[in-house]
Amino acid sequence: MLGQYLNALREQGPLIHCITNTVTMNDCANALLAVGGSPIMADDPDEVAEIAALAGGVVLNIGTLRRQNLNAFYGAGREAVRRGIPVVLDPVGAGASRLRTETARGLWKELPLAAIRCNLSELRALLGEGGGARGVDAAPEDLAASASLRERAAQIGALARRAQTMVAVTGEVDFVSDGVRTFAIRGGHPLMARVTGTGCMLTAVTGAFLAASPQQPLEAAAAAVCAMGLCGARAHRRLLEKTGREGTGSYRVLLMDELACLTGGELDGGEDIEIFERAD
Amino acid sequence: MLGQYLNALREQGPLIHCITNTVTMNDCANALLAVGGSPIMADDPDEVAEIAALAGGVVLNIGTLRRQNLNAFYGAGREAVRRGIPVVLDPVGAGASRLRTETARGLWKELPLAAIRCNLSELRALLGEGGGARGVDAAPEDLAASASLRERAAQIGALARRAQTMVAVTGEVDFVSDGVRTFAIRGGHPLMARVTGTGCMLTAVTGAFLAASPQQPLEAAAAAVCAMGLCGARAHRRLLEKTGREGTGSYRVLLMDELACLTGGELDGGEDIEIFERAD
Amino acid sequence: MLGQYLNALREQGPLIHCITNTVTMNDCANALLAVGGSPIMADDPDEVAEIAALAGGVVLNIGTLRRQNLNAFYGAGREAVRRGIPVVLDPVGAGASRLRTETARGLWKELPLAAIRCNLSELRALLGEGGGARGVDAAPEDLAASASLRERAAQIGALARRAQTMVAVTGEVDFVSDGVRTFAIRGGHPLMARVTGTGCMLTAVTGAFLAASPQQPLEAAAAAVCAMGLCGARAHRRLLEKTGREGTGSYRVLLMDELACLTGGELDGGEDIEIFERAD
Repeated sequence: MLGQYLNALREQGPLIHCITNTVTMNDCANALLAVGGSPIMADDPDEVAEIAALAGGVVLNIGTLRRQNLNAFYGAGREAVRRGIPVVLDPVGAGASRLRTETARGLWKELPLAAIRCNLSELRALLGEGGGARGVDAAPEDLAASASLRERAAQIGALARRAQTMVAVTGEVDFVSDGVRTFAIRGGHPLMARVTGTGCMLTAVTGAFLAASPQQPLEAAAAAVCAMGLCGARAHRRLLEKTGREGTGSYRVLLMDELACLTGGELDGGEDIEIFERAD
Repeated sequence: MLGQYLNALREQGPLIHCITNTVTMNDCANALLAVGGSPIMADDPDEVAEIAALAGGVVLNIGTLRRQNLNAFYGAGREAVRRGIPVVLDPVGAGASRLRTETARGLWKELPLAAIRCNLSELRALLGEGGGARGVDAAPEDLAASASLRERAAQIGALARRAQTMVAVTGEVDFVSDGVRTFAIRGGHPLMARVTGTGCMLTAVTGAFLAASPQQPLEAAAAAVCAMGLCGARAHRRLLEKTGREGTGSYRVLLMDELACLTGGELDGGEDIEIFERAD
Repeated sequence: MLGQYLNALREQGPLIHCITNTVTMNDCANALLAVGGSPIMADDPDEVAEIAALAGGVVLNIGTLRRQNLNAFYGAGREAVRRGIPVVLDPVGAGASRLRTETARGLWKELPLAAIRCNLSELRALLGEGGGARGVDAAPEDLAASASLRERAAQIGALARRAQTMVAVTGEVDFVSDGVRTFAIRGGHPLMARVTGTGCMLTAVTGAFLAASPQQPLEAAAAAVCAMGLCGARAHRRLLEKTGREGTGSYRVLLMDELACLTGGELDGGEDIEIFERAD
């Protein structure tokens, strides 16, 4: 069902303008190339509007935020919104510092975002629900692993309605919700959390999927999340076959290989998704 | 014929001062180390002249340009020129924004460059010939694939004369020209374009070849281009042998391996070059 | 003997706040994750104190120093010192420019550092002993390879006393000294110097070991140095077994794999350490 969105992305090759953190920007660029997009990183306030205008999607990631770069975020974001180009926000570390929380909230309030891609702690911090982020990882109490899948999907759906934007919240199970429908997506592998940037890569890739299929944003974002999870799981199997151990250097390389080689048909075949409709 | 330039580079191990973009700077540093150079990245205006003075070559890459960094570009560039140290410019994305186009033009006009390394769209934008760059990739109409090799070499030669500097223009076929002689170099593999930074790496490596053989700049730059193309092709063959598919993560690793292991003799044996002299 | 410090690190998973250079920050983040730490990179002056306060260790690396970032170094460093959080300094390139030398000296003079991790040229430059650094590599005359191990350990011990802080000085043989006891640690492989960032990774990892075992700083830092050297040697053996050649791309991946897979028991079994006590 979701493979078509990968096919559309590979056919269109949208240009994705990323204003993203310096830790993982190389991985984001390579992940975009792997799934069929074309990355451009540009963050000078004097050029971001021009670059955003060329792009099919804009990705804002606050992972190594500097206050002086706020103008770049807003300049690119506003131009994209004006042109109907989807903007995806990754509020990395929201909750860990006032600067990050306020910046994430400000971007969310000012820009009609196409999606917020983050973990549950970051989303709750952005929405002003407190949350106990520890650095860039989700707080344990936010993982809510004891709740049933349906309850957790309902929680994410409610947050999406509060956010008034689509959210893609990754964790042990990933959720994508527009507030009405919520996709619960199983996949991935815990080793993904031991490679920096897998979340940032997913955010960038989500921007590319949305750029290629702007009319079906929920399905496009779910396809991005599902593709990343499937590749994470496949890369782990291949890692064990090839090396017999969990080396994170090799795992990172294999994850990129999977992203580059994944086909629409494989995505269709590898989906593990449950869809919950809002009951009330 | 060109292997000697690689040998000279490995023997001398020149220090290369890079002011380069944050997306691919790690790859540039590793590529320089792989071919035998020694990288130093430094872009504070207060130290660039001192660092450039220590270096055998200076590489300026505007890939994630910030206006506030112009002083660093000029500070390093002027000191290098004053000392006769070759300066290589990579006008990444010239044509995609006014800031990039103007910065590239300004650096080209103010600094006697040893070489400009870019794609055809970027070179034409720098020279004010318009061109339709889309992000950081060459515009299709600039690829001129229908023209004969001789015609395309003549086009590049004319651009080099207009630029009044040596140019290394990569694409389906790569060209290096000083306006009088033009080397047309076949090699590489299309998969190189699906790994971010292969162009930036070539620019950095060109700086190292020029630093080691400043008296034969055309041959030295051609050796850099030829080495990168040969390694790109060899890495692709090895990738298929090893994995049977085109994973871009593994390809990037293998490309670096090839750069590290390439010998002068292999470069001599792997050259596929035609040289065109200016007829008029 | 030192394996317990790795075990403690993997059990505690300390958050490490890095203000580090843009060339190798991705490698530093992945190295921290590999050994069991949790990285956060944050360098806006407005958030560094908050982030440092969350962390178990703070790592300051001046590799791509910008004068405007000095406030971030001091802001994070002072908050960490106030809270008793260990601060590790990597004075990358001290001696290569006045900005770097002065910045390194300033940080050393103002902040009670838990450790300085660098090469001998950088340490001597920081201490005002001149030294002839060439870029970011140690000057040949600083390597002092002709001296006996005991003499070299005594030299490092004297420098640690002058620095009034623990030093971890890497080179052909690595030394960790608090001025009273000096560990001479053999390991590593020359190929490590052909991959950018192995020094920066070690500095970051040292911060994590110190965060996990702040009561035994000398042993903890020695464990970090020993772990990195052991992994460098093991990765080289594995590289030759797997590929039969010295490709630096593959070597870098394997080095990360070794860091991720190293156990306390393997560290105990692989140590090659001599300990010198101050005689006078």
